[in-house]
Amino acid sequence: MNITEKILAKHAGLDEVSANDTVTAKVDIAMSHDGTTPPTIKVFEKLTDKVWDPEKIVLVFDHNIPANTIGSANFQQVVREFAKKQKINNIYKQGEGICHQVLPEMGHVKPSSLIVGADSHTCTYGAFGAFSTGLGATDLALVYAKGETWLNVPESLKINVNGKLPEHTFSKDVILNIIKTLGSYGGTYKSLEFHGDTIDAMSPDARMTITNMVIECGAKNGIMIPNKQTREYLAQRNITDYEITTPDKDAEYEKTYDFNVDDLQPQVACPHNVDNVCDVDKIQGTTINQAVLGSCTNGRYEDLAQAAEILKGQKVHEDVQLLVFPASRKIYQDAIDTGIIQTLLESNTIICNPGCGPCLGAHMGVMDDDMKAISTTNRNFLGRMGSAKSYVYLSNPQVVAASAITGEITNPSEI
Amino acid sequence: MNITEKILAKHAGLDEVSANDTVTAKVDIAMSHDGTTPPTIKVFEKLTDKVWDPEKIVLVFDHNIPANTIGSANFQQVVREFAKKQKINNIYKQGEGICHQVLPEMGHVKPSSLIVGADSHTCTYGAFGAFSTGLGATDLALVYAKGETWLNVPESLKINVNGKLPEHTFSKDVILNIIKTLGSYGGTYKSLEFHGDTIDAMSPDARMTITNMVIECGAKNGIMIPNKQTREYLAQRNITDYEITTPDKDAEYEKTYDFNVDDLQPQVACPHNVDNVCDVDKIQGTTINQAVLGSCTNGRYEDLAQAAEILKGQKVHEDVQLLVFPASRKIYQDAIDTGIIQTLLESNTIICNPGCGPCLGAHMGVMDDDMKAISTTNRNFLGRMGSAKSYVYLSNPQVVAASAITGEITNPSEI
Repeated sequence: MNITEKILAKHAGLDEVSANDTVTAKVDIAMSHDGTTPPTIKVFEKLTDKVWDPEKIVLVFDHNIPANTIGSANFQQVVREFAKKQKINNIYKQGEGICHQVLPEMGHVKPSSLIVGADSHTCTYGAFGAFSTGLGATDLALVYAKGETWLNVPESLKINVNGKLPEHTFSKDVILNIIKTLGSYGGTYKSLEFHGDTIDAMSPDARMTITNMVIECGAKNGIMIPNKQTREYLAQRNITDYEITTPDKDAEYEKTYDFNVDDLQPQVACPHNVDNVCDVDKIQGTTINQAVLGSCTNGRYEDLAQAAEILKGQKVHEDVQLLVFPASRKIYQDAIDTGIIQTLLESNTIICNPGCGPCLGAHMGVMDDDMKAISTTNRNFLGRMGSAKSYVYLSNPQVVAASAITGEITNPSEI
Repeated sequence: MNITEKILAKHAGLDEVSANDTVTAKVDIAMSHDGTTPPTIKVFEKLTDKVWDPEKIVLVFDHNIPANTIGSANFQQVVREFAKKQKINNIYKQGEGICHQVLPEMGHVKPSSLIVGADSHTCTYGAFGAFSTGLGATDLALVYAKGETWLNVPESLKINVNGKLPEHTFSKDVILNIIKTLGSYGGTYKSLEFHGDTIDAMSPDARMTITNMVIECGAKNGIMIPNKQTREYLAQRNITDYEITTPDKDAEYEKTYDFNVDDLQPQVACPHNVDNVCDVDKIQGTTINQAVLGSCTNGRYEDLAQAAEILKGQKVHEDVQLLVFPASRKIYQDAIDTGIIQTLLESNTIICNPGCGPCLGAHMGVMDDDMKAISTTNRNFLGRMGSAKSYVYLSNPQVVAASAITGEITNPSEI
């Protein structure tokens, strides 16, 4: 069996599973946020009046915090009341950060565990060797009631990534290049199992960027074997009691892809699809009005540090707003401790509170017709960040920083 | 003549004016923000195609930054284009802060000058001995075209404030107590001229809180003679070439009020009027869900420092979101340099980007039915911060901090 098959077999109480089997699996952790918890509650309350295990549910306020409308405020009230009634203590409602950063940071993510969440980027936790995937609110309501869910065992793709990333090229470029190769639909309901020395050399921050974005080629999940840095990250959170799942020698994969990143250039996903990817040089010179550094994809400490390297001693272009959203309060605090926030402020960036910000066009950076953003977020769909006549380009933190300085899409090597 | 009469006479080119005279006065500085500039432009463009003096116009993005809707983003685009076309260089569009902090901070406010702005709290600059008042967009359009405006010379009230403020009591309490005494309509179209040793001992930050709120009793303007600290603040901005206007010995006032603050307790303005003011002890114990520290009234360095004193080593109550909005990027930077932001973050506050935040219920802390906020802002009108069934209590920064810790309105002396 491959990694995903092994984890699903274990959680289904079976010795063995194969791709395309349908199983009922026990869930270790279930998550929803301020946007998806209220619809989950609606279905849940039709099923039962008590959650299966309040300690295994995690609720995070991140999509609309602080509340941007009366409706958002109402959603948060509903979630608070649900948590009190159900005695759910793992509720992060005071701006702790984005769910996909808060869960690992607060020690809710263990290797080989099964995690589901009512958010499509729940696949992020695969960076820690967990099987994790997004569910709709209806399916999650069943998990909240029963502690289990049905799953088709996905076909697996083996993705080998080897080589040393050149300067100004990061894990974001790796995953954008993979999505370019597979196509937006190329991973539909598949498991992407990552291997190779590039992946093994990456920090948890960098790895999470990759597993976070597997959904952008349709994948059910992305998964990696925890490396040394990941195990250290877990140990810092007193997580030491876990199994590491590795694939059997005869593990089956639908297909194997080999990537070498020695010559990979910074990548940009152009409007309006995540697989519309090119080298930054191909799109260089495109005027932008907004630059966004943040999100569950690239709002982590390393991302802010990489951007600060480029912005140090520079000013954001007068026609650009550079919006920065640390992915969590802890990241924000660490970035103050090391002077990164100060560097960003000196460059005239707008530092916003931890949360999802304008990633999904709800608030804090909504765009008008004809506006163009360069962004470290994960989706550039038509109208994603506001007007259906606006444009979103996705890239790594240094391309965002460089472009914010020049006012046009720029290769960071030119700063 | 009193101070306001002297400044208006000079700007009208007259030797003398009296209350109730109508004059046409030359304007030194005119201001509008992201919300009021577009309607101003609409009228302006019916009058002419060139502003009277681009150097004397200041534009600030503060009300909806980052843009919360496509409409807000559109307004900002309109302002950017206007500034480019009219060669207005004093445009603060990258999160520099709230107009009423940015103008003095960036050196646009001089004693004895005449400043108008399309925002009701433009009266703030009276703390520096300027005559300043809010205009509607139509009147401001005429100023942008001609550099002058008509004014009725207001009757003046002499407000003497003497005594030493007790611990936990600040300039916010002074002005709330004055508004309680005069009533919401008690200062309508009058000038409030402040004197006394309490005012003279105050920092510019503290003085601005007072002049900022004179509009809450309907006043046309509030004005103070620049004291030593104010002159130092100006000197730090290379503003040394100015006259200080003092009242004549025989200056006329409609009425004189004498306040002694030796025993003043922290004040709270209860829903839904700013003059519905009582001592904090009278309202102590009222449950709150939201606490707001910021705004053009109380988002300055001293305000953050006062709140941090109370919050140091404490945590925000689990049922409360404490939202902090530094009034400018500079304040934010200074508060990082001295560890104030770090203290606030350790207490689980949500630090937001400089701007107006939820003060006017547009975004970043909108409230649902039955929610209650304790806030350092300036208005507690029905529905001001969201739902018409929500409640806003106004107070000083330490009452907000103390209440955020306990989850109910609290006298800071009890923390």
